Amino acid sequence: MKPVCLVIGAGAGIGGNVGRRFAREGYHAALCRRTDQDGLDRLVGAIEGDGGSASGYLLNAVDDGTIEQRIEAVEAEIGPIEVAVYNLGAQIGDRPLRSTSYKAFEMGWRLGCFGLFRLANLVCPLMEERGAGTLLVTSATAAVRGNAGQHSHAAAMGGRRMLCQTLNAEYGPKGVHVAHILVDGAVDAPDTLGKMLGPERYQQLRETRGMEHDGLMLPERIADTYWHLAQQHRSVWTHELDLRSFSDSPWWNG
Amino acid sequence: MKPVCLVIGAGAGIGGNVGRRFAREGYHAALCRRTDQDGLDRLVGAIEGDGGSASGYLLNAVDDGTIEQRIEAVEAEIGPIEVAVYNLGAQIGDRPLRSTSYKAFEMGWRLGCFGLFRLANLVCPLMEERGAGTLLVTSATAAVRGNAGQHSHAAAMGGRRMLCQTLNAEYGPKGVHVAHILVDGAVDAPDTLGKMLGPERYQQLRETRGMEHDGLMLPERIADTYWHLAQQHRSVWTHELDLRSFSDSPWWNG
Amino acid sequence: MKPVCLVIGAGAGIGGNVGRRFAREGYHAALCRRTDQDGLDRLVGAIEGDGGSASGYLLNAVDDGTIEQRIEAVEAEIGPIEVAVYNLGAQIGDRPLRSTSYKAFEMGWRLGCFGLFRLANLVCPLMEERGAGTLLVTSATAAVRGNAGQHSHAAAMGGRRMLCQTLNAEYGPKGVHVAHILVDGAVDAPDTLGKMLGPERYQQLRETRGMEHDGLMLPERIADTYWHLAQQHRSVWTHELDLRSFSDSPWWNG
Amino acid sequence: MKPVCLVIGAGAGIGGNVGRRFAREGYHAALCRRTDQDGLDRLVGAIEGDGGSASGYLLNAVDDGTIEQRIEAVEAEIGPIEVAVYNLGAQIGDRPLRSTSYKAFEMGWRLGCFGLFRLANLVCPLMEERGAGTLLVTSATAAVRGNAGQHSHAAAMGGRRMLCQTLNAEYGPKGVHVAHILVDGAVDAPDTLGKMLGPERYQQLRETRGMEHDGLMLPERIADTYWHLAQQHRSVWTHELDLRSFSDSPWWNG
Repeated sequence: MKPVCLVIGAGAGIGGNVGRRFAREGYHAALCRRTDQDGLDRLVGAIEGDGGSASGYLLNAVDDGTIEQRIEAVEAEIGPIEVAVYNLGAQIGDRPLRSTSYKAFEMGWRLGCFGLFRLANLVCPLMEERGAGTLLVTSATAAVRGNAGQHSHAAAMGGRRMLCQTLNAEYGPKGVHVAHILVDGAVDAPDTLGKMLGPERYQQLRETRGMEHDGLMLPERIADTYWHLAQQHRSVWTHELDLRSFSDSPWWNG
Repeated sequence: MKPVCLVIGAGAGIGGNVGRRFAREGYHAALCRRTDQDGLDRLVGAIEGDGGSASGYLLNAVDDGTIEQRIEAVEAEIGPIEVAVYNLGAQIGDRPLRSTSYKAFEMGWRLGCFGLFRLANLVCPLMEERGAGTLLVTSATAAVRGNAGQHSHAAAMGGRRMLCQTLNAEYGPKGVHVAHILVDGAVDAPDTLGKMLGPERYQQLRETRGMEHDGLMLPERIADTYWHLAQQHRSVWTHELDLRSFSDSPWWNG
Repeated sequence: MKPVCLVIGAGAGIGGNVGRRFAREGYHAALCRRTDQDGLDRLVGAIEGDGGSASGYLLNAVDDGTIEQRIEAVEAEIGPIEVAVYNLGAQIGDRPLRSTSYKAFEMGWRLGCFGLFRLANLVCPLMEERGAGTLLVTSATAAVRGNAGQHSHAAAMGGRRMLCQTLNAEYGPKGVHVAHILVDGAVDAPDTLGKMLGPERYQQLRETRGMEHDGLMLPERIADTYWHLAQQHRSVWTHELDLRSFSDSPWWNG
Repeated sequence: MKPVCLVIGAGAGIGGNVGRRFAREGYHAALCRRTDQDGLDRLVGAIEGDGGSASGYLLNAVDDGTIEQRIEAVEAEIGPIEVAVYNLGAQIGDRPLRSTSYKAFEMGWRLGCFGLFRLANLVCPLMEERGAGTLLVTSATAAVRGNAGQHSHAAAMGGRRMLCQTLNAEYGPKGVHVAHILVDGAVDAPDTLGKMLGPERYQQLRETRGMEHDGLMLPERIADTYWHLAQQHRSVWTHELDLRSFSDSPWWNG
């Protein structure tokens, strides 16, 4: 029975590539996303085509019980979740305060913070029982600074970051590695950045940001770092790191 | 008509003392707290006894519409809210992850983060229209680091801090001063610290923490800094500062 | 005998205005700067014209023994240094790495970091003996993030900030208040900003940055906050705060 | 001709292990340390015994020209420095302010900050010319918070961190990857920790900190992360990360 890498938020960007990478290394990739059964099928098919093992699930993380039921089913039917990846974004674009509805603000929290709490609530104790496990959390610049128009997103991500620290403080000594991965730039992902920009501007950006798309962060290379984090010896764990393209300014340089 | 200082969370600690200080300087203090009509009456009475102007309201900030209705009533019946103080805590004590219910986690967010968003949503545009205003936000160490057992509190406060930054980014240039005040220590407040510890341990702590209770933070002196922040010239605003007793270690020194 | 406020770096900007403010409140202002005897005389004269007490000294802080001898002379001849202000900048403008000489890098450290260490080395023990004292340290954005071309300045200021924390950790519990004041913007100071820009661009900037020069930070209003810090009750000290104009973006917002 | 990994500070802890790891991957390890020719010979011998290529140099980094001459000689005689590792510590133990001599404070800066500047001054332009290169900088908790007694160390490390940011800001877009690696715990290194504690307490610590010495950070596993950083694709570089043992508290948790 293969160990499982569970990915919440497995699109064509970071989530899908991380699942694929762990599958290549011998994990079963349990891939969850909200919509796009076709994209999910393609991803599972690609992993299986590489000789890997994967399964896909449509799942609306903000609905009650969805994450919880998926964890239970995976544990019962597939195998122990050794690695869990929380990769849901909560970006809704820049909106002035008055245009940020209570509902949008709450939705940001549900996706950005509460969903991670629910995931951790189930998987951390399982990992503790087994003496080991890894929780990899994709995060965003908004976790460390709040820009204009980012009320919902920044409040959610600021909470996400502090939650990663409280999880680490409680579960680190129990053998559960929690890492907060600050993705400080635009990822070359057709179904997030591509949708946000539209196909033309997306293609244009890919072409102008430099040789080999270097200006955009390549998600398959981001997956290399996720894999490395999961491989770190427990005497030398990283809790927090940043990732950005060489050609981008870090957030603190404006 | 006096300008109003609206305090959400006006107990016998920071909130009440800030209200009292602003009343002494010529503001009407509109004081809101969840329970304890007697304590509220005493506070209003004390301010009026000093020759100041105040009114008190019981208000459960997590209930729909409560903050909003209070703002509208104060603006209609008393005067323009020049200063708003968000002073609700969300500390529930240390609880392991498994003992932190979904409800407790959500309640932390409602008090710690969403309530501030609701307040800001109404008062920032009013202040913008009038070209000036101040939003003073009490915050906690958990806004900058997450300790074990602080899952609900730290996630809420991390969100609070980022929200202060997004509010500042949008409303600062419009003349609204938003300040995030990190209270990094125990406040000498009978109805929060006193309740948490019980009367005997509270009294004991007051006596052992040194001459003139210096080890505990005196809320009337905290109010001095709140007042200073509201007086800063708009060319030299502070967005973020910390406060602690000289005898306490800062959070980063452990 | 008046208590003394010693200012290292007392030009026409923050340093001079802080000295003037403390003199107005009853301190003797002992004002040190590297050059410009005329400017120094004018400053002393202005303070005395207001009915205050002041003295001025030309002093090259990077030369051996200069700060030390001044402290000893002031303590012996004028009075106890209750407040010391370290206000030396170390900004040399943006220079690429290859154009930053070893000498420039070292000079940055001597002004930015070592001078503060020398000051603290003498005044903190004096303040400890007397059971109280305040060390106010002007700092810059470069203390918290390093921009391109700021090799010398940022390395010096990053050291300055950490030094403030070690001083606070050791001397706070002994009654010495150390505050690190992050000045995150351009100060309306003719002899720093004015010199850097030249008279025409400086005047232009003053005119275009908005009504009442609000875009530039008014140093006499910065002095209000220095004064407030020195007045904070020891149960509620601020160690770190930022200052910027309402119309400027904080460093983290780029 | 093999590419070179130059290590400044190559003892039996992080530096030596990083050199060894890069040698295993095909680099020539150019290993510099201040003293202990025997230890250096053993290290070079061990690498060569593994089939790798290495050379060792005694070098006092604080002496004028030493780092510079070594870089020039390595480039001339061995090969292009593709990876430079700055691994000099500047920890002198806890010393109160009055016991921290000017000389000790300056020495901290020379080792902690100026040496890195000198290294970067030569290798960054070489790497820029070649379009790629990696500068890996070992850092310490004192780079992000100043504890009592750490005046020299924290001021030096605070400068080191800001310098890494200015180097990254200037050289990142030119293809040079600068990483600041915060080692937040005790490393299982006989010639630093071992010397500081003495053989008995060191052995005792190794035994009591848990199974497989997990409480101490294993330097050969730290080297895994240094290697990973040097392998990151330039679209997904990490500038800053922390490392600590699962059983240790992060610095922010005290």
